Amino acid sequence: MHAITIPEPGGPEALVWDEVPDPVAGEGEVLVEVAASAVNRADILQRQGFYNPPPGASPYPGLECSGRIAELGPGVAGWSVGEEVCALLSGGGYAEKVAVPAGQLLPVPGGLDLPQAAALPEVTCTVWSNVFMVAQLRPGETLLVHGGSSGIGTMAIQLAKAVGAKVAVTAGTKEKLERCAELGADILINYREQDFVEEIRQATAGAGADVILDNMGAKYLDRNVQALAVNGRLAIIGMQGGAKAELNIGALLTKRAAISATSLRARPLGEKAAIVAAVREHVWPLLEAGHVRPVIDRELPMRDAPAAHRLLEESGHVGKVLLVTA
Amino acid sequence: MHAITIPEPGGPEALVWDEVPDPVAGEGEVLVEVAASAVNRADILQRQGFYNPPPGASPYPGLECSGRIAELGPGVAGWSVGEEVCALLSGGGYAEKVAVPAGQLLPVPGGLDLPQAAALPEVTCTVWSNVFMVAQLRPGETLLVHGGSSGIGTMAIQLAKAVGAKVAVTAGTKEKLERCAELGADILINYREQDFVEEIRQATAGAGADVILDNMGAKYLDRNVQALAVNGRLAIIGMQGGAKAELNIGALLTKRAAISATSLRARPLGEKAAIVAAVREHVWPLLEAGHVRPVIDRELPMRDAPAAHRLLEESGHVGKVLLVTA
Repeated sequence: MHAITIPEPGGPEALVWDEVPDPVAGEGEVLVEVAASAVNRADILQRQGFYNPPPGASPYPGLECSGRIAELGPGVAGWSVGEEVCALLSGGGYAEKVAVPAGQLLPVPGGLDLPQAAALPEVTCTVWSNVFMVAQLRPGETLLVHGGSSGIGTMAIQLAKAVGAKVAVTAGTKEKLERCAELGADILINYREQDFVEEIRQATAGAGADVILDNMGAKYLDRNVQALAVNGRLAIIGMQGGAKAELNIGALLTKRAAISATSLRARPLGEKAAIVAAVREHVWPLLEAGHVRPVIDRELPMRDAPAAHRLLEESGHVGKVLLVTA
Repeated sequence: MHAITIPEPGGPEALVWDEVPDPVAGEGEVLVEVAASAVNRADILQRQGFYNPPPGASPYPGLECSGRIAELGPGVAGWSVGEEVCALLSGGGYAEKVAVPAGQLLPVPGGLDLPQAAALPEVTCTVWSNVFMVAQLRPGETLLVHGGSSGIGTMAIQLAKAVGAKVAVTAGTKEKLERCAELGADILINYREQDFVEEIRQATAGAGADVILDNMGAKYLDRNVQALAVNGRLAIIGMQGGAKAELNIGALLTKRAAISATSLRARPLGEKAAIVAAVREHVWPLLEAGHVRPVIDRELPMRDAPAAHRLLEESGHVGKVLLVTA
């Protein structure tokens, strides 16, 4: 088969479409013939040599895919050859075939074509596990989503609105904020022109955000704590603004607030399967009913992965960038 | 009545036993004739002028008491005059009488005399709300308790052992560690001579602590994150080591760990009542059965509150220091 390989870490041109051996479906795995994968920030870090695949994972990038089941490994039940699926991966999505633990498979929701379904696994699993399983966003609460127009952001807005929460977003342009508003965001903050702490306070009568979904890490830590409401929960899922920053424990304590930080990729199989099962139970019905949909910026041929990476690095996109094999 | 007043913030001598007006039981409150109160670190901060009582609270120190119900305010059901109780307070325990919201009352557990029961409300509510309600310590997990011989520490050890967890403690002397061992602590760490990160790693085959109950704040933040296991939870309840410190978000994210910080005093009535109800449901049966007991360093007359504060400031005590009115 072909896959995007990384012979030497580096810029987007480090991604090379090359011929490689087919993967094999091991115990409890299925082999998926990939229709599409999608680009995640973690893929860029992996390309740069900063985020090695966990032990046992495929060496190729790609944390999600959609496709058709080509083969069942030993011990797999509940799935059959030819079925259309999408899947959360530990790597290897930028390829024509990938082996996936069966617990990480999801059916393609009705109303979506096969490539579009590749936009779902990472964003639904990340948002559901952080905003709902860890931070337990409840109806009537306010969620602040940083990077509201990203793949994660566009899904977080929709899921939070679907459960009856109020949603604030930050983004860097008027156009991106307008897209967030179309998806249901109530409070629009241009981080280049406005102070999100002040804006969220004004929009919540001084209360602050009950939950914050953050991809910036260090750069926003102090302001995120300031923006939290009493009993607020800050869920950190990325460190685009650095890894170390001063924490005001006194402010956290006064607010009885909490900070969590997670990633999906390194979780053991059992935890991933539990998240995928929860997503199938809670998010899939919303997709099937059309209340929530993946936001897709564009589809590029998988061999053009370098162009897709450039697009993400320039932050010109809204929603997900797909890589299709066909 | 008499109460310990603070005419001017300062050292232990700032605490003055004086005649003051009786409190009045308002709507939903009962008037308790105080048998004993107990000393908490927060009382020292209040005496020093660093921790003002929340709005509506008594101006006198004292976050817990035991005593007899002298009067029921309007709208109180389920309690009767003459009943022996202990209570979580927002202040005012260092006095002969105190008005208490009925939701913060607990019966005196069988087997304890009335003054002893004053040792229970703060430690049981703090440990239960943080270690069990927030951090959700589970059987088989490892809890690290800093200050294992404190009032909080001695209760945390016992409750964690009662639910089947493994307990590590830090303390500053061999004698204090021995007392912790008598209460069931499995892993004893002398913080003056040993590095708790290294000790907890060795004692858990490299895994780390699943939950840490911390009273130090800034001083221990980085090492606490280092000492956490994957999926670990750090519960901060004090800032004896300062309020601001650098947080390694990268380490937190790699471990999928969480940090919470809480205090009891500022919580609204409803939250306090929910915690007290949970403590009555889960902790009181353990006290009644004798599986858990309050550890009391000594009882002093309430007018000698200055001596009691000196004792806490010198950290020579193990468990709770009581102030009795009789």
